Amino acid sequence: MDAIAARVSEEDVQKFLKSYFDSMTALDVEAIAAHYSPDIIAYDAIEKLEFVGRNAYKAHWKACLDMCKAMTFQPHDLKVHVEGDLAVAHALVRCVATGVDGTEHTGWMRATMAARRKDGAWEIVHEHHSSPFDPTSMKVLDLSPDS
Amino acid sequence: MDAIAARVSEEDVQKFLKSYFDSMTALDVEAIAAHYSPDIIAYDAIEKLEFVGRNAYKAHWKACLDMCKAMTFQPHDLKVHVEGDLAVAHALVRCVATGVDGTEHTGWMRATMAARRKDGAWEIVHEHHSSPFDPTSMKVLDLSPDS
Repeated sequence: MDAIAARVSEEDVQKFLKSYFDSMTALDVEAIAAHYSPDIIAYDAIEKLEFVGRNAYKAHWKACLDMCKAMTFQPHDLKVHVEGDLAVAHALVRCVATGVDGTEHTGWMRATMAARRKDGAWEIVHEHHSSPFDPTSMKVLDLSPDS
Repeated sequence: MDAIAARVSEEDVQKFLKSYFDSMTALDVEAIAAHYSPDIIAYDAIEKLEFVGRNAYKAHWKACLDMCKAMTFQPHDLKVHVEGDLAVAHALVRCVATGVDGTEHTGWMRATMAARRKDGAWEIVHEHHSSPFDPTSMKVLDLSPDS
């Protein structure tokens, strides 16, 4: 793949992922799930080791969104690797969620996404969200990129 | 890329990752780090949001290995996506670590690795290890693939 084709593909993946993160902020579970492959294998930050398939992961997202009045996921310094119809991207993500009781929760997490292009459209085949923990207390660490 | 070339590349990545996991079980920090790109960006399960560069991540590995007498990381059902010189792989990982005091710790984690082939050799440019947590207690969950 030449340099121009690589840059065009990377911009295409950046645009696809911007749409994906925007769908989270819109709390739109249908739009979120529209970015997934039917066969996605997702490692989410909470609840289970893995979610296999779009339907299972969509149900998990719905349960998460039902706990929020508002939410933003802002990726910082998103890195994209792309070759042909395969892409990998990762970023630190600033999360702000407002619970149904109005309480605001903020924090930094990490996100990795792998996507394949099928019939001209990208779809996420794997993603991994997490927060690091302290191995002594086994509790999640509240860290920022500067800490 | 045709089907035979894709299978050969996938087997090549599987072999590279087997060597990588074996280097962990050998507690061999030099061999572990030899699998990394100098520019790796790693999201490890513990301590920090990210480790930037092979040297920083190697120092973190050394500190982790110094706490262990023995350790195994066994990937289960490793999935590999590969195209040209880019690969993404992920697996649930069974971890067994024996501390310097002889106490054994076991658990399941998740691992995602992205690798690029450079001058014919694969190197990991990004990896992400984690355990999911309970959002109420903010504590790491002790889960197995069947739970």
